[in-house]
Amino acid sequence: MTSAPTHAKGLEGVIAGETEICNVEQSALIYRGYEIADLAENASFEEVAYLLLVGKKPTPEELKVFQSELVSERKIPELVQSFLKQSGDLVNNHAAVPMDILRTAVSMLGHLDAQCQDNSADANLHKSKRLLAKIPTIIGHMQNNIDGRDFVAPTEDLSHSANLLYMMTGEKPSPEAEKVMDVSLVLYAEHDYNASTFTSRVIAGTLSDMHGAVTGAIAALKGPLHGGANEAAMDMLAEIRKDIGPENDNAKILDWMHQAFEDKRKLMGFGHRVYKNGDHRAPILHALGRKAAEARGPEFVRLFELGEEVQRIMETEKNIYPNVDFPCGMTYFTMGIPVPQYTPIFVASRITGWCAHIMEQHANNRLIRPRAAYVGPETRNWNG
Amino acid sequence: MTSAPTHAKGLEGVIAGETEICNVEQSALIYRGYEIADLAENASFEEVAYLLLVGKKPTPEELKVFQSELVSERKIPELVQSFLKQSGDLVNNHAAVPMDILRTAVSMLGHLDAQCQDNSADANLHKSKRLLAKIPTIIGHMQNNIDGRDFVAPTEDLSHSANLLYMMTGEKPSPEAEKVMDVSLVLYAEHDYNASTFTSRVIAGTLSDMHGAVTGAIAALKGPLHGGANEAAMDMLAEIRKDIGPENDNAKILDWMHQAFEDKRKLMGFGHRVYKNGDHRAPILHALGRKAAEARGPEFVRLFELGEEVQRIMETEKNIYPNVDFPCGMTYFTMGIPVPQYTPIFVASRITGWCAHIMEQHANNRLIRPRAAYVGPETRNWNG
Repeated sequence: MTSAPTHAKGLEGVIAGETEICNVEQSALIYRGYEIADLAENASFEEVAYLLLVGKKPTPEELKVFQSELVSERKIPELVQSFLKQSGDLVNNHAAVPMDILRTAVSMLGHLDAQCQDNSADANLHKSKRLLAKIPTIIGHMQNNIDGRDFVAPTEDLSHSANLLYMMTGEKPSPEAEKVMDVSLVLYAEHDYNASTFTSRVIAGTLSDMHGAVTGAIAALKGPLHGGANEAAMDMLAEIRKDIGPENDNAKILDWMHQAFEDKRKLMGFGHRVYKNGDHRAPILHALGRKAAEARGPEFVRLFELGEEVQRIMETEKNIYPNVDFPCGMTYFTMGIPVPQYTPIFVASRITGWCAHIMEQHANNRLIRPRAAYVGPETRNWNG
Repeated sequence: MTSAPTHAKGLEGVIAGETEICNVEQSALIYRGYEIADLAENASFEEVAYLLLVGKKPTPEELKVFQSELVSERKIPELVQSFLKQSGDLVNNHAAVPMDILRTAVSMLGHLDAQCQDNSADANLHKSKRLLAKIPTIIGHMQNNIDGRDFVAPTEDLSHSANLLYMMTGEKPSPEAEKVMDVSLVLYAEHDYNASTFTSRVIAGTLSDMHGAVTGAIAALKGPLHGGANEAAMDMLAEIRKDIGPENDNAKILDWMHQAFEDKRKLMGFGHRVYKNGDHRAPILHALGRKAAEARGPEFVRLFELGEEVQRIMETEKNIYPNVDFPCGMTYFTMGIPVPQYTPIFVASRITGWCAHIMEQHANNRLIRPRAAYVGPETRNWNG
């Protein structure tokens, strides 16, 4: 052992390695040197994806080549399409949720990727681009099948964000909807050693392949203590709405919240392992989502006002701030996206961070293998 | 943060949590209080599986019920069978290896498991048994399809080990072959916070589901620095054999090894993150495998003699000892098992350890989310 054993449940506060990709601090969230507010304001999702995967801001020419590579890789193999034709049955009649289907479909993509077993930097970058390009197609086809509609073929003339929305609905989104989606993908793209990214690094650290590492990361992102929180946050708001009725009555909201506190209920979309004074991403997405709600109509504004009141009570009474998943739930709801697709959309963004970390892990690898403190029975004999 | 940040690359020496399931020490390997040599000598794999999953040694009646539950769950759904009919094409004509196919098939099993989204202790135990029972069927069907044969239906009268061998080959194994397989599964069942188990705990720690956590663990086990080492160890011995010819010439073996040392080649099946003076499981499996080789004929004895000479050189010149994967490669080869199935067979055993850890994580959960040290560029502006 190179250092004294450290015991930290959940690895809280333990630095598990280095990264050049992202810096998560109380005062800032930085992707390769650029602050998140700067990126949300000035960079497109494709530019951020390039930054994360390649390591630098693209020139206009590099961006054009990158975009056309992505567009050319949007189609998915027949094997995966054929599996996605089961999505509706598996989700509507069985136990599956979209995050599960996405996990299987991405795992399957590996089998037909000619570079699947190649962990070189060059192969990994190519695989990253293919995964980034194909995930919206998987999400779209899955939603089409769940809705009982034919698959919508991927476009060649839309951005990553617009294409994602188009594939799910069959309708080209408005520039405003495209912008909101694009910024949400920028905000979700990367967050250092969060649980899903850390999963992908532990898998990659055995020198396993990128598709396997991403498959494991999707499994981790699903959990309501991680990416699944955007769905759980919206489900909670829908539950409050159901309980208090269509109008926002602040006394009723307060009663609901006090009951939740009394029941020691975990309220999703609040708090963060790292950020103690608020998540830098939350106000950016909240402002955009609220603007979209104002354009869409009073029903959606009321949802945001409900969320704001819930947020105010959490801050005042518990000193706990919303994380990005809280405004995300309300924003995607306003955009008409089915709730079980919120976390798959998170995947369509975070795939960039995962692939960047897998490449970083493979480039300077060390097996990630901690120890456990044994607290089980004393030694005994099987026959005795 | 509850403790001062600790920087330990690969989390070497960091205690990431507690467990009642397993104790890995320099002097012993213990499953819930029982030493590994005691279990290998006196317990069947089903008894060890029960011990790990339920937490205690089964009574004869409990064992009987457990065995019959497993037998009744051996069949797999049509959806997964239909995917496995692609195994031959995917492995023989595309980029897939059996560990990849197994990862997808297990991910798919979740979609049809009615308890998939239920993380309660009761549901998790039921899912563990179903996974344990069905994995040999997946491995068997996959091998049948790769070999271009019809699927062999699971038996109702064979043990887990014998059924696994039967499903892969269509032939009921000898009692000796069954015993060797059974002991290898006992040895492989559990090993505290190894990389694949740790992956499953990181995934489960987000409150994601058991099938997702196991899917991620399979992805991690594949890597040659982890479970994939048993395949890599046998591939290395085959390479030495090819280079030096059919007879064991110790001078040629020494030359081969010296060249490998000079090339700074990583020799698979040697060394261990925890064990510095040898892996407790290696001599147990070596002795059994050698006995099987002696029964099978001189060609197989020569393989073991080659392995022993390689081992002697590693110990003498590098002070590095074989881990369990080294004798495992030679043993499974002696049993006529195709090399790319060695790590899937490891899954058929380690599924017990993974499920035990997932249940332990869910029962007393805390999100596993470390920090990273940022070593990337200084803060800069996107536009200028």
